[in-house]
Amino acid sequence: ILHCKVEHAIKIYSIYTLNACSWSCCALFVVCAVHCQRFLMSRVGEDWIFLILLGLVMALVSFVMDFCIALLLQAQKWMYGGLDSNVILQYLAWVTYPVVLISFSAGFTHIVAPQAAGSGIPEMKTILRGVVLKEYLTLKTFVAKVVGLTCALGSGLPLGKEGPFVHIASLCAALLCKFMSFFGGIYENESRNIEMLAAACAVGVGCCFAAPIGGVLFSIEVTSTFFAVRNYWRGFFAATFSAFIFRVLAVWNRDEETITALFKTRFRLDFPFDLQELPAFAVIGIASGFGGALFVYLNRLIVQFMRKQKTINKFLMKKRLLYPALVTLLISTLSFPPGFGQFMAGQLTQKETLVSFFDNRTWTKQGMTEDFNYDSHSAAWKHPQANVFVILVIFIVMKFWMSALATTLPVPCGAFMPVFVIGAAFGRLVGESMAAWFPEGINTDGIIYPIVPGGYAVVGAAALSGAVTHTVSTAVIVFELTGQISHILPIMIAVILANAVAQSLQPSIYDSIIRIKKLPYLPELGWGHHEKYNIRVEDIMVRDVRYITLNSTYRDLHEILLIGNLKTVALVESAESMILLGSIERAQLQALLTQHLSRERRLEFIRDRADAERKRVSVVSTPSSEEGGQKVNHEVRFQISTEESSFTPARPISPKPLKPALKRTSTAEKNIEIPTSNITHTHTFTYLWKHFKIEEWEEQQLDEQVNFNSWKIDPAPFQLVERTSLHKTHTIFSLLGLDHAYVTSIGRLIGVVSLRELRKAIEGSMTVKGVKVRPPLASFRDSGTSGTSSESEATELHKLWDRHTSISIPREHQPNTSDSDEKSQ
Amino acid sequence: ILHCKVEHAIKIYSIYTLNACSWSCCALFVVCAVHCQRFLMSRVGEDWIFLILLGLVMALVSFVMDFCIALLLQAQKWMYGGLDSNVILQYLAWVTYPVVLISFSAGFTHIVAPQAAGSGIPEMKTILRGVVLKEYLTLKTFVAKVVGLTCALGSGLPLGKEGPFVHIASLCAALLCKFMSFFGGIYENESRNIEMLAAACAVGVGCCFAAPIGGVLFSIEVTSTFFAVRNYWRGFFAATFSAFIFRVLAVWNRDEETITALFKTRFRLDFPFDLQELPAFAVIGIASGFGGALFVYLNRLIVQFMRKQKTINKFLMKKRLLYPALVTLLISTLSFPPGFGQFMAGQLTQKETLVSFFDNRTWTKQGMTEDFNYDSHSAAWKHPQANVFVILVIFIVMKFWMSALATTLPVPCGAFMPVFVIGAAFGRLVGESMAAWFPEGINTDGIIYPIVPGGYAVVGAAALSGAVTHTVSTAVIVFELTGQISHILPIMIAVILANAVAQSLQPSIYDSIIRIKKLPYLPELGWGHHEKYNIRVEDIMVRDVRYITLNSTYRDLHEILLIGNLKTVALVESAESMILLGSIERAQLQALLTQHLSRERRLEFIRDRADAERKRVSVVSTPSSEEGGQKVNHEVRFQISTEESSFTPARPISPKPLKPALKRTSTAEKNIEIPTSNITHTHTFTYLWKHFKIEEWEEQQLDEQVNFNSWKIDPAPFQLVERTSLHKTHTIFSLLGLDHAYVTSIGRLIGVVSLRELRKAIEGSMTVKGVKVRPPLASFRDSGTSGTSSESEATELHKLWDRHTSISIPREHQPNTSDSDEKSQ
Repeated sequence: ILHCKVEHAIKIYSIYTLNACSWSCCALFVVCAVHCQRFLMSRVGEDWIFLILLGLVMALVSFVMDFCIALLLQAQKWMYGGLDSNVILQYLAWVTYPVVLISFSAGFTHIVAPQAAGSGIPEMKTILRGVVLKEYLTLKTFVAKVVGLTCALGSGLPLGKEGPFVHIASLCAALLCKFMSFFGGIYENESRNIEMLAAACAVGVGCCFAAPIGGVLFSIEVTSTFFAVRNYWRGFFAATFSAFIFRVLAVWNRDEETITALFKTRFRLDFPFDLQELPAFAVIGIASGFGGALFVYLNRLIVQFMRKQKTINKFLMKKRLLYPALVTLLISTLSFPPGFGQFMAGQLTQKETLVSFFDNRTWTKQGMTEDFNYDSHSAAWKHPQANVFVILVIFIVMKFWMSALATTLPVPCGAFMPVFVIGAAFGRLVGESMAAWFPEGINTDGIIYPIVPGGYAVVGAAALSGAVTHTVSTAVIVFELTGQISHILPIMIAVILANAVAQSLQPSIYDSIIRIKKLPYLPELGWGHHEKYNIRVEDIMVRDVRYITLNSTYRDLHEILLIGNLKTVALVESAESMILLGSIERAQLQALLTQHLSRERRLEFIRDRADAERKRVSVVSTPSSEEGGQKVNHEVRFQISTEESSFTPARPISPKPLKPALKRTSTAEKNIEIPTSNITHTHTFTYLWKHFKIEEWEEQQLDEQVNFNSWKIDPAPFQLVERTSLHKTHTIFSLLGLDHAYVTSIGRLIGVVSLRELRKAIEGSMTVKGVKVRPPLASFRDSGTSGTSSESEATELHKLWDRHTSISIPREHQPNTSDSDEKSQ
Repeated sequence: ILHCKVEHAIKIYSIYTLNACSWSCCALFVVCAVHCQRFLMSRVGEDWIFLILLGLVMALVSFVMDFCIALLLQAQKWMYGGLDSNVILQYLAWVTYPVVLISFSAGFTHIVAPQAAGSGIPEMKTILRGVVLKEYLTLKTFVAKVVGLTCALGSGLPLGKEGPFVHIASLCAALLCKFMSFFGGIYENESRNIEMLAAACAVGVGCCFAAPIGGVLFSIEVTSTFFAVRNYWRGFFAATFSAFIFRVLAVWNRDEETITALFKTRFRLDFPFDLQELPAFAVIGIASGFGGALFVYLNRLIVQFMRKQKTINKFLMKKRLLYPALVTLLISTLSFPPGFGQFMAGQLTQKETLVSFFDNRTWTKQGMTEDFNYDSHSAAWKHPQANVFVILVIFIVMKFWMSALATTLPVPCGAFMPVFVIGAAFGRLVGESMAAWFPEGINTDGIIYPIVPGGYAVVGAAALSGAVTHTVSTAVIVFELTGQISHILPIMIAVILANAVAQSLQPSIYDSIIRIKKLPYLPELGWGHHEKYNIRVEDIMVRDVRYITLNSTYRDLHEILLIGNLKTVALVESAESMILLGSIERAQLQALLTQHLSRERRLEFIRDRADAERKRVSVVSTPSSEEGGQKVNHEVRFQISTEESSFTPARPISPKPLKPALKRTSTAEKNIEIPTSNITHTHTFTYLWKHFKIEEWEEQQLDEQVNFNSWKIDPAPFQLVERTSLHKTHTIFSLLGLDHAYVTSIGRLIGVVSLRELRKAIEGSMTVKGVKVRPPLASFRDSGTSGTSSESEATELHKLWDRHTSISIPREHQPNTSDSDEKSQ
């Protein structure tokens, strides 16, 4: 090929170049280029190329999106500032702008890809668990998520960028994988794709906050159950590259002089905090733990409340954009700066708020002195009538429910950043209180080090976001965001305390959404649930297992396929011994059955029949033998085409694929008319006789024993012992990403456990601890706003969930309504 | 119990207190105390109590050890400084002191616990893999490690504290577990102990460097293959607490004013580095990668060289302390400050060296100006004759081989810190070069920011230590050590590049030691070894599997037990079907056999016999029946006692437990004499007859079919399919910590794969890539210095390895010498 290409190139060039010297130069160049191309092509398959591309693309996306969001926010400020002559006009501008943006975001998301709404981390967690949610990784979703997120964040509502960015990065990785598979074959590997998705999650966080290490750790904590250390480097590599490009773009754009942190702080290095301040940090941690649990609870409560109010629900279902618009109107009205917004620094954007919180100067020093005014951001916290403490408290309370409410909107949005800001506000409040309490600093001997309330804000931000997401790595994210690590011990202590409190009260926000959306995810075992060791597999397994035996006939296969819609069937030696030999996929069974009753075999049978008949006919009437043979052939062809249409359409997991074959009696009878009208010499009797022969043949074939040799059997399906503890079962299911496991006793199949039974058992035992969330109803966001469309996210998820539960294992039929779910738990 | 205690307390108190009021107060107090005690006792079992205790103890150990090391180093300085009148005396003092300390350390370690020598991380990696190396977690080892490490580090040799600290923390956790098990039962749980050990590793790094996050990540990267995210918090919690206490102790000891980083840097925050400096950082990363690989290679080369030189070897074996003493002498002589040491800053300790490297001032500004002299540490780098660059180069080269040599000494020591210092020196060298090249800084527009060579030193330290240990988390450790995170992107880039280079050239230092010591560890699959997907289990499995069937007789059992020394035996349905039903433990089989030929059954048989005989006797001679009965009982008792001594001694996995039973013919014949001498009325004929009857009975019993019901079978031993890829097999073995897995084909047992086959396959396939290390010989340290003792570490490990390989699965006998190993690979 190389030679050909070169020759071809040489030919082309030789036409234009007459000079021999330049001719040879060009040829050399072409050879080099071809070599380079081949080399590059061979390297395209390597991981690092993929990771670099992913990092590059995501950094660009993040940068461009940030740029657009900043523009949108600036436009609002500009409008608000330009209309300062008339307060009503100002109010209208202030309110209309976000309402329009959010409505557009919700509408666009809904029309293009309803899956793009929400955070995306719960879905990624489910996908990385091994469940295929294909709709979530398409180009449409990518577009919807990017555009929707930009508009949503541009509206100024308390929404975050982190969760959606994890989803966007994963989408990007999935699309890149598809794109790269044009070049090489390894991109087909399933487990490799999962590894790449895990790396992509790290990239998402990394390029959102320019926090590579925190990104990797956060994505591990949030999405994985077991983490393969050998994939560690992928995340680090991609996230570092992405964060690097993201920050370099800022430098090139002259936003920054060099690469620094996103929310750079300037706390003093020599004496960051006094040892005696630690109790205050611990208090922040514990309070944040309770606050985080409350946030998760509130968020879920809002979703459930909107679901339960049937009248509101019905009304909102008709006008799907009304709910987002109303919520936005409410939040915007309350934060209107000349109105109530003056008591909660309404004019500041999220970023400005954070910068003001992380400021290393005290706001209350000597009771609001002149050095309070120099910064425009901090000035927002000064109010002639109200104390700074009052304003902070109002800010925290208002933002708390606003954030919980805003994150239920059906737009792409995350909860991390709003929570982060609230946490920073709480930390600042404690810090300012401490500064007011100890105006001279705490340390009594030697130099006076005043208290730095900004440090408290950093601690609070890490603690509250850690509590809501149940992660420790928010500490690392905070270090990378602020560019300072001097508060490491207070932050770690506060984050750990917050986690301890929050984890004992509520699930994380992502687990909560998983339950609300009923994603097929296995819940975590809590900390130190020792009763898990006492529940055995035999207590939870399903004993009525569908199986086939070595002596099964095709009819048994057929029945198995008709009854359950299971994904795999157990193969046992015999119904008496019940020794488990392996499992076989449904698709395999179906293919086997189809093949046994296949076109070829029918053809063969009919040809044999025809031969026999021809012989008979030739004996009876020799002259018409050729004509008769033609007719038979025609009929045979017809018969075949019927069979083809009913059997070959490749729907391997369609629930009732054999119905057409069984209804053949009626369809075949109808079809009889057609050949008779086509063929002039009608031998209806012969035809019917032949047809009954075919049926007879089929019955006979179905009664035959299944032929082993062409089967693809999984000879080692995962087996458990009846006395395996729930804890161990959970570990094994999580480790291996299992869907179901057979329970055996000395080789005998006695039951089966699927993800569903396990989930129930775990949630059942969690109720005892009071950790259990109410069996979650489908999110209001989903059904409330998209009831008129059959393509809504809720139904999508329900379908997925149904398919998931149904594919696992046959069990007693139970309707998949939320009510029955509620009962069963 | 509570009531009783209270009553008892009340009684005691009522004697002393006559006043009714004080009496009731006291009673209340006692009740409260008892309640508290009960509450505490019930809480002792919880994880966090354990983790707090662990953190506390380790922080204390680390602090005290640091204190002692500092004292020891100060003593050397004081001696050296006091003898400045005479250079020869000074030299003697300078050299003798470390020689004595290292010799003592080596001797003490050898006598108390030879397992304490070396880093300990490789052993912990093996233990966390699931292999039991019990000798490594005893109190003796703890003492030897702590004392030996203190002396070794006090000598001033380039040795590190990190690796041994991981081991010490694990020892501490193991001992605490034992101690705590007095209070509650959960400390018995195997998997829980492993989780605790993993947390302990994090604590070890955390309290060594006061780096909780880096500690957790480093310990994960270094010791784990798959990490359960749900155990994450344990590590963070314990490491944070430990680091906190460690730094608080320093504050209380008035070493520090407040909690800060260990090697605090003071780089400027606004403009940490220029974008154009990044290529220099990348160069540091790549060079560090090569340097790290070279270090690992050099370290292994030294060990192998000392092993191969038979003459040196023999001489050194006799004088076990000679090798450490000679090495110490060499290193001390070369670093003698008035001698060659003046060209390599010999008078600085490791800590002082690091502080001088991380200094944020340039050494070469305007060619050694006056502001170079203000710091005593930096002054060491100034030499009247030599350039600072020359001195740095000499330092790097000398320290490089010195560290590689010193870490082969048989004392508790790690390689992390020496490598860290060398990396810092290299970074400083590059930084100083850059500063000399661009004296005005690189940035052309606006303010001039001079180059900070200290930042380069930080980058170099992280990169080289990352390359040697194959970890990315050294970056995080560096942030926590220096208390600054502003150089995050250069550090991440350099560390990732260094890792990429080093991992493609050499294994990590820990993997290298694992191979040298031949620890039973499964090697990692490298990056992107796609050929792993092509090797199948059927290529590597052992086809000759020992098994028992459902129809097996006790004789078969007996033979199986005699032939192989396997740990578990496969149970198949029959020799024809070969359907795998499960596996059964060797101990179970043995117990089963013992029970079948047990005392009770023998007794019963003999009693039956006796009854029969008695009847016979009573028919023949009625008066002597009672006497005969007595005698028979006596004999029976004797027979039983023999059986007891040969069967009951609980050595369940002793290789040939049934020998006594088979040799019974001879032993029994010998034993016949004894009863005859004891019993006056000798009926030798009767006895012999009865004895033969017993033998006959035994033979008959052995031919009986095994009775199923009392078996404890593992009905689901791990199974693989013959077409499972090596990659998947490796993953499954690592995930589940398997020792062996059966290979089945449609339920039929066709082979078995153990850790050993897998290891061979992976190492074999690694040769292709050139990554493979020569099959490592036993460490010189082990056999060279401990040849005269049978209790040496090398033999211990060999035994372990032998047992490990032998317990897995029966296979063709192969001698476990290193030569055959070399051949087989």
